[in-house]
Amino acid sequence: MKFIDGGVCAATGFLANGIHCGIRKNKDKNDLSMIFSTVPASAAAVYTTNLVKGAPLTVTKAHLQNGTAQAVICNSGNANTCNADGIEIAEAMSRLTADALSIRADDVVVASTGVIGQPLPIAPIAAGIPALVKGLNAHGSEQAAFGIMTTDTKKKEVAVEFTLGGKVCRLGGIAKGSGMIHPNMATMLVFITTDAAIKPAMLQTALSGDIANTFNMLSIDGDTSTNDMVTVLANGLAENDVIEADGEDFAAFMKALNTVTVALSRMIAGDGEGATKLLECRVTGAADKATAKTVAKSVVCSSLLKAAMFGADANWGRVLCAIGYSGADVDVTGIDVAFQSSKGTVKVCENGAGVPFSEEIAKEILLQDEIEILVELKSGTAAATAWGCDLTYDYVRINGDYRT
Amino acid sequence: MKFIDGGVCAATGFLANGIHCGIRKNKDKNDLSMIFSTVPASAAAVYTTNLVKGAPLTVTKAHLQNGTAQAVICNSGNANTCNADGIEIAEAMSRLTADALSIRADDVVVASTGVIGQPLPIAPIAAGIPALVKGLNAHGSEQAAFGIMTTDTKKKEVAVEFTLGGKVCRLGGIAKGSGMIHPNMATMLVFITTDAAIKPAMLQTALSGDIANTFNMLSIDGDTSTNDMVTVLANGLAENDVIEADGEDFAAFMKALNTVTVALSRMIAGDGEGATKLLECRVTGAADKATAKTVAKSVVCSSLLKAAMFGADANWGRVLCAIGYSGADVDVTGIDVAFQSSKGTVKVCENGAGVPFSEEIAKEILLQDEIEILVELKSGTAAATAWGCDLTYDYVRINGDYRT
Repeated sequence: MKFIDGGVCAATGFLANGIHCGIRKNKDKNDLSMIFSTVPASAAAVYTTNLVKGAPLTVTKAHLQNGTAQAVICNSGNANTCNADGIEIAEAMSRLTADALSIRADDVVVASTGVIGQPLPIAPIAAGIPALVKGLNAHGSEQAAFGIMTTDTKKKEVAVEFTLGGKVCRLGGIAKGSGMIHPNMATMLVFITTDAAIKPAMLQTALSGDIANTFNMLSIDGDTSTNDMVTVLANGLAENDVIEADGEDFAAFMKALNTVTVALSRMIAGDGEGATKLLECRVTGAADKATAKTVAKSVVCSSLLKAAMFGADANWGRVLCAIGYSGADVDVTGIDVAFQSSKGTVKVCENGAGVPFSEEIAKEILLQDEIEILVELKSGTAAATAWGCDLTYDYVRINGDYRT
Repeated sequence: MKFIDGGVCAATGFLANGIHCGIRKNKDKNDLSMIFSTVPASAAAVYTTNLVKGAPLTVTKAHLQNGTAQAVICNSGNANTCNADGIEIAEAMSRLTADALSIRADDVVVASTGVIGQPLPIAPIAAGIPALVKGLNAHGSEQAAFGIMTTDTKKKEVAVEFTLGGKVCRLGGIAKGSGMIHPNMATMLVFITTDAAIKPAMLQTALSGDIANTFNMLSIDGDTSTNDMVTVLANGLAENDVIEADGEDFAAFMKALNTVTVALSRMIAGDGEGATKLLECRVTGAADKATAKTVAKSVVCSSLLKAAMFGADANWGRVLCAIGYSGADVDVTGIDVAFQSSKGTVKVCENGAGVPFSEEIAKEILLQDEIEILVELKSGTAAATAWGCDLTYDYVRINGDYRT
């Protein structure tokens, strides 16, 4: 398996595009994206667990009942959530897309992201779709990635190449996610495409299994969005034997999927609202997987630790504190903690108590862009990793006046 | 019942004092406080649920086994938590206090607050206790309140006068709490005193019952401290008939206690780290109390809503979002939301969807110091209130470099 260019268009038969249609005020920012498979594709999705759900999710869920889709339409700048006419608008987006592409409306995945509770006008979308369709191309991943961004500062796209039964396959995706991101749901908007041939049920199994260890182990700010979803389209143009059950091919597919979702998870965490650094908490020696995950998530979710990491302050007491209130049943007198980055590793806590360390070395380690927080529980062999980011002035600035 | 001056010394027979002994670097800040009852008192306490517990809590818990205490010693600037010699130091603090006051060491409540994982030197405490004891006086509540502060910007003290069977009683307290404060535990350091006569078991019942609706409905930043505790000492000098069971006197006592704890809860929330305003979320029309509490807490805990309140932005979608992911089983299509302050009330959401409102009026309402977020669920008669504060640049500044 190797990383390749092309993002969501890396797989054969996928075209994409992104434009500015007028939902966002800033004309330099794309706000409408489309992904199109030249043939109908197997489709799977996971959705937010928030009871307040964006209208597009309801419509997409209905469309994917039959396990097939051929296009994605997504706008940014408005979440189309908590609006009286939300379903109507989401259905109109699907229909306009389907008509322009000459496909069925129920083969369209529809998504929206942005502010909640403001009516989404259909006019700019209707006016934009012809140009959006006209510009669809096999190098359109980047423009599509721009079109789904909200407070993201960087586009997020990645792709890999792998083989299934001797056939070369590709799997790639684009993502957006910056604030209102928290574990225990499909965490943001992610669109993944592949030319591998796989039955819809197996595609859903792969996706649901994967996100438990990737997007659901990611937190920016503890808020679970109303509009999150992750979808995968698999169009089969790589001509591998169709994956219909567990086995070697399914394992290879899962590995490719996981490589892409971990890469996107790290990109999303590192580009969290206002973030200056990516935090990765790796828990080892846990009695079981659930304990490892609970501890890892609690650490990356702690506002106090996140602020300390912003300040490059090796305040390991906050790591212990976050483990202590996580709800996990751990022996706190057995916990070791170390901070690690490209500048080295510094052990700060052994068996639940502080050990002497150089503040200067710790500072140098914590001043890097990617920080690993290593937690060893010494009570078993289970492990888990969670991703997050630091808490900064800019998080407050961005969210202090988001609507105006 | 009426509010009176005197704080933790309002009740007959209680003396207090606070001094700078040298744990904190800033000589202008008190860092050691004492409260003393001239006679042994009934005692009750509640403690943090964090598995990582400060050594002082372990020692205090042992001392209060017999339901009696006579003094409180508390330092700020160092939490005496996650230190190998923590228990030893906490016991030494108790013994030095007991010796200086000629009382039993197991009648001392010992507490520490501040940074975790740095050894607490006993020398400055030992050197300071003689002066601390010498200065004990019936007007010492303020100095004691200063001595338990960490990042607090205001001292927190309150007291009330009430009657039990015709006898005038007083109940008052001091509190500290600014960061690392979250529901589901005894939330901070609170020391309450009363001259009412009440059996230890009933005192514990009163305290445990009360905090479920007061300190445990309070969140500053979602982090549950390792050192939180709330204690009450009742010395009986008001000479009321000893409260030994439920009944009219117990109800009157509970009311006095609740008045003091609600006042302290609001003071703590309003003085949250970096906070510019107090948030109070009042949920009504819930199917049951648990639902009302879950919803109220989720709203005041949302980082996104807290940042919006800092910016006086009526972003009610974030209220709906926080209700949606709270875990409570609510009908989101029945939710009404309004923002309220001394400048008036503005309804922003009805039946789960936005309603037109004046942004100027909303802004004026949200620019005040105390904001009420009113949530009506229309599915029953249960209600609950939770307290929190806004998320600001100063929260990040304070916690970005707390230790150095």
